[in-house]
Amino acid sequence: MPDRSPAALSRETCLALLGTRSLGRLIFTYRALPDVLPVLYRLEGEDVLLRLSLGSVAVPATRGAVVAFETDDVDPLALTGWSVTIVGQAHELIGRNPAGLGSLAGGGRDHYFRVAAEKITGHRLTGA
Amino acid sequence: MPDRSPAALSRETCLALLGTRSLGRLIFTYRALPDVLPVLYRLEGEDVLLRLSLGSVAVPATRGAVVAFETDDVDPLALTGWSVTIVGQAHELIGRNPAGLGSLAGGGRDHYFRVAAEKITGHRLTGA
Repeated sequence: MPDRSPAALSRETCLALLGTRSLGRLIFTYRALPDVLPVLYRLEGEDVLLRLSLGSVAVPATRGAVVAFETDDVDPLALTGWSVTIVGQAHELIGRNPAGLGSLAGGGRDHYFRVAAEKITGHRLTGA
Repeated sequence: MPDRSPAALSRETCLALLGTRSLGRLIFTYRALPDVLPVLYRLEGEDVLLRLSLGSVAVPATRGAVVAFETDDVDPLALTGWSVTIVGQAHELIGRNPAGLGSLAGGGRDHYFRVAAEKITGHRLTGA
């Protein structure tokens, strides 16, 4: 049987794909356990800018921490698509909506973070 | 300004929502860093059954480990939707596709895991 494991994508392709979406998932550690939150983001250069709701447990867990961020576009019926994950340290941004992002939690005074794509990996999925 | 932080969902609602989707994201630790992979799953009772591609780095990283699994249904334009995350220990299932799941990586001799929803959290998102 031929090996059809997911095809790894180049850093350049990963960044190009990151730029095509606006919704991803932030992975952080909360109370020593992994936790995940959908977030709106946009790509700026090789950084991901994202918005967290005021009062979210993710805010103190993200500030200064190494986090992962993932976005994908997968068709669960056709079993095709792609996924890109970055890992990097998150730095808080100062100012009123410096990332120009909408909120998934309706907050007005939210927190904004920049995550540098220190490590970036991606795969194209070709299922069966 | 009214507090419109994401509304926490009950365990019962979280499980009901988990049962409505087939694509989620598995969060595991690989080389001491967080990593994420889209996976097909189905809910069985209060457990999530999922399939990993043979040869994926996620397989040894998931076997016996405490992992997180997240699924959501978010409209990034309307800024509404929901997200559910479970955390639990992953146990490998034995047999030929015991979970009856399709593959995102086209493998024939894949690995299957059961993740018990030892901890389950969910939020309804109401953005602006």
